[in-house]
Amino acid sequence: MVRVLHWGVGEIGSRAARMLMDRPQIQIVGAISHQVGEDLGRAVGRASSGVEIVGAPEDLGDVEGDLCLLATYQRVPDLVPQIEWLLDRGMNVIASGEEMIFPWASHPDLAEAIDAKARAAGLTVYGTGINPGFSMDALALCLTSCCASVTRIEATRASDFSHYGPGPLRSLGVGLTPEEFRTGLEEGWVDGHIGFRESIGAIARALGWEIEEYREEIEPIVTAVERRTPHVTVEPGRIAGCTHTAEALSGGDVVIRLNHPQQIEPSAEDAEMGDFVTIHGDPPITARITPEIQGGQATAARMVNAIGSVIDGPPGLVAMDELTLPFVTPLGRPGTRARAGSA
Amino acid sequence: MVRVLHWGVGEIGSRAARMLMDRPQIQIVGAISHQVGEDLGRAVGRASSGVEIVGAPEDLGDVEGDLCLLATYQRVPDLVPQIEWLLDRGMNVIASGEEMIFPWASHPDLAEAIDAKARAAGLTVYGTGINPGFSMDALALCLTSCCASVTRIEATRASDFSHYGPGPLRSLGVGLTPEEFRTGLEEGWVDGHIGFRESIGAIARALGWEIEEYREEIEPIVTAVERRTPHVTVEPGRIAGCTHTAEALSGGDVVIRLNHPQQIEPSAEDAEMGDFVTIHGDPPITARITPEIQGGQATAARMVNAIGSVIDGPPGLVAMDELTLPFVTPLGRPGTRARAGSA
Repeated sequence: MVRVLHWGVGEIGSRAARMLMDRPQIQIVGAISHQVGEDLGRAVGRASSGVEIVGAPEDLGDVEGDLCLLATYQRVPDLVPQIEWLLDRGMNVIASGEEMIFPWASHPDLAEAIDAKARAAGLTVYGTGINPGFSMDALALCLTSCCASVTRIEATRASDFSHYGPGPLRSLGVGLTPEEFRTGLEEGWVDGHIGFRESIGAIARALGWEIEEYREEIEPIVTAVERRTPHVTVEPGRIAGCTHTAEALSGGDVVIRLNHPQQIEPSAEDAEMGDFVTIHGDPPITARITPEIQGGQATAARMVNAIGSVIDGPPGLVAMDELTLPFVTPLGRPGTRARAGSA
Repeated sequence: MVRVLHWGVGEIGSRAARMLMDRPQIQIVGAISHQVGEDLGRAVGRASSGVEIVGAPEDLGDVEGDLCLLATYQRVPDLVPQIEWLLDRGMNVIASGEEMIFPWASHPDLAEAIDAKARAAGLTVYGTGINPGFSMDALALCLTSCCASVTRIEATRASDFSHYGPGPLRSLGVGLTPEEFRTGLEEGWVDGHIGFRESIGAIARALGWEIEEYREEIEPIVTAVERRTPHVTVEPGRIAGCTHTAEALSGGDVVIRLNHPQQIEPSAEDAEMGDFVTIHGDPPITARITPEIQGGQATAARMVNAIGSVIDGPPGLVAMDELTLPFVTPLGRPGTRARAGSA
């Protein structure tokens, strides 16, 4: 039985909570979120769980846990106080925040501090998700295991954001005129995807590549036709999303190129959605996953499926290259490794 | 510096030897194969390596190594004496033999014996390759990490065998009449692919699935047009290859279905080559790698790229679910894990 503290009951946290409840060998020992006083099960659309959501870690009482699923913030500085509290309470941590996939990229000092504290405590801290965390990094790394050498990695995740409401779509500029989009870019409230530095940092460390130059670009996707979702309608000539690209150079060459078009109603202009990875190597590998892996469910699943590897993992702050090959945890069998079994 | 003994200089072993020679932090300390007295480098088409191939382990003298790349036999019973000798000499083992990918499937008693001996010695024994070992098993497992649950896995590896000579093609029945093919099947010298039991065993153990029924089928691919390679010519109406399929059932349902069409000159009848994986899960995932990952190079690469994980791996006989996420080893940096690095 693995005792899990559940911190954060937003979209990802709700999905993860439902997955935990389907795994009988998981015991949810507490929940922290803003739905204070609600039952966690009912808060996520399930039967009553007997776990009451509290508003802050201090309100948990003397709850003990093996691990916390932390689905609260995107940025490392916001997560550090929570992670420190969890390490002090003896818990391993799996976080969904984009910057936590490879905290050395944007916050090397904080990463070193988390690593030192986790090592001292003999605990493991890990960040995961679909993007960053899989589509453009872990999947590409895994494919390179078939190569004698690799000179360049390209990955595209083309995502349909039609199911999102106006809030998340604002950072993509959806509905704006091209002029307003440029203003949003300049003022920083149109900012596309968080995670390129992390994906590139994780790949580069694993492959031993020294990145000498790094650049990002955000281009608007202007729709030629009306695009309509249950949440928003965008007229022709306005912004339906954006294409965010990052490139990392080594030795003067682009060695990693990540490309992330995100838009609503892509079928209106026949845009193909999917996760596409090209390994320029010996042998070369071209992989296509269509449509793109569903992001919310996959991010929550990758957190839950990492529970066993993280509990068995090396102490410290770890990244995707340091844990065992990830796979869906058998319902009811997280964290175990049967030695027997045959076809 | 990792000291590697190289055992077996056939197609896979030659490719692996060239990859080792490109990695300056690998020291090849000895080589065993039938090209007795030849220099290993020259035997694999490279400059002289200073390593003379000997015919048997007894002829190595007092060579010491950290690990052996073992590319000799396909079957576990043939490999056991070699593995035992290596463990007695204090070496970890990475084997390419198909049955070694999951030895519990066909030889549970031998698997337990290897495991016990390796644990006692504090050494790791691992089998890997492209198929079995990646296309139909490790890749599928890795994709399931994005799923809350999985009910069925299907994988197809459609391979072009045009580059093979008559020897390897005989077990696929290439060139035979349909009647001769049936005779070959009955007499057992047409036997298709080795590795389905291993792929299914590895997947089932990782996912905690109990396999209640297992079946295989081999169907001929009869060509409608002449197919010609540098090595063989097949007239219309004769066999251009075969489709080998395996199914594993649990609870009355097919939960794993693996499909492996192997033929020469598939373009003659517009057959699409590739590695195709479908995860029936939440969310569902459909991945297509076209053309298929080149088998010989990938098998050798997966052996070489596993060196670091195996040296750091848990003692015993291990399978793909027990080692760290595989990726191409940086040239010159196997077996190390830098803690720093950022984009």
